[in-house]
Amino acid sequence: MKKETLLYEGKAKKVFSTNNPDYVIHFFKNDATAFDGKKKGSIEGKGSINAKMTAYIFTKLEEAGIKTHFKELISENEILTDKVSILPVEVVARNIAAGSLSKRTGLAEGTPLSAPIVEFYFKNDELGDPLLTEDHIYELKLVTPEQLKQLKESALKINEFLIKFFDSVNLKLVDFKLEFGLNSAGDILLADEISPDTCRLWDKDTDEKMDKDRFRRDLGRVEEAYEEVWRRVNG
Amino acid sequence: MKKETLLYEGKAKKVFSTNNPDYVIHFFKNDATAFDGKKKGSIEGKGSINAKMTAYIFTKLEEAGIKTHFKELISENEILTDKVSILPVEVVARNIAAGSLSKRTGLAEGTPLSAPIVEFYFKNDELGDPLLTEDHIYELKLVTPEQLKQLKESALKINEFLIKFFDSVNLKLVDFKLEFGLNSAGDILLADEISPDTCRLWDKDTDEKMDKDRFRRDLGRVEEAYEEVWRRVNG
Repeated sequence: MKKETLLYEGKAKKVFSTNNPDYVIHFFKNDATAFDGKKKGSIEGKGSINAKMTAYIFTKLEEAGIKTHFKELISENEILTDKVSILPVEVVARNIAAGSLSKRTGLAEGTPLSAPIVEFYFKNDELGDPLLTEDHIYELKLVTPEQLKQLKESALKINEFLIKFFDSVNLKLVDFKLEFGLNSAGDILLADEISPDTCRLWDKDTDEKMDKDRFRRDLGRVEEAYEEVWRRVNG
Repeated sequence: MKKETLLYEGKAKKVFSTNNPDYVIHFFKNDATAFDGKKKGSIEGKGSINAKMTAYIFTKLEEAGIKTHFKELISENEILTDKVSILPVEVVARNIAAGSLSKRTGLAEGTPLSAPIVEFYFKNDELGDPLLTEDHIYELKLVTPEQLKQLKESALKINEFLIKFFDSVNLKLVDFKLEFGLNSAGDILLADEISPDTCRLWDKDTDEKMDKDRFRRDLGRVEEAYEEVWRRVNG
């Protein structure tokens, strides 16, 4: 598969067309941003770790019956995927209170939730990716009610799978963000990535943060945390 | 009924106990606040208008079969009500995009919604009264799923009634906020007030704002707008 034109450059990835119109290549950058792009930096080795980890986990998810856009890891920091049209709804699943859920609800960071919570956010940088209710989503016609139901069910299924997977490598899955896309046949595929950029992962024994919160909150040893997660996942 | 101790002072009202433990008296103040209390002011005559308008509308709602805490208007700016325990969920119903819905979704102010939207907010000054999803509400155990369903149904029923009512006095009901409380029997009663403090009301012909947005946005003629709304409602 030959990399051709740059189609899109996001905060953490570049997407290129290929000589096959159904496939694209994602190049994972080391660039890191937080707080709606207000904080900018770079995490050495992140692009490669996130590409490899996404390849690894999406392969496992496919084996577990979850349809994803993933085709192949084609270099240290590039994956080949189906070309999809990304749905403008980001899906967040949570098992333990942290981040914006703690801010919104007052639940102390680290509080285990009585059941997983799935939230929907408007994928819209200009509006700051706000939380939406289902009624907002229908009014904006971002996805259909049937699609939203599918997104929620899929997120819960992926959550169940990932909790067990990360637990097996001594990590707690606190929460994570998913993006989905439609392929040319109209099927919903899991897209984007699953990595320490998109998951909160805490060490099971010490609750040490092993994810992008180390960058967001200037906790130090950011590179080391990404490397350690990948070492465990690939162990 | 004799007014006794001050039980609670809010931003717009004082609540007093009475010689009957099942009843309280609400005194409506002229004080106005906005933006989580950051903006403060006073609107002459507001207390009296809001008390009389709440009395008028709650009486109509009772006639329409909606249970409210309202008993009696006992002075120009005081109402007697059932003593209820206020549920910590504020219910907002919307017919036209405005305010935080426009900010959140990018829908231009004035855009008619394809169907009424009901939103739930955490009644929590410290957290800034954030929007909550149903999952958040269940996790925080603010109300039960059955109660939430009842709140939503009740808000939609009240919305239907109020749209027609305000239309009959040449006002568009853009959106409004409701609070509900539990009486000693555990019944959910509509509580708080319905007034230009809690409703967005636009003149049907000119779309002129006739509500607290005149205060929030320094549009001038605030007192006149409240008086005009009361004149029409009581006309």
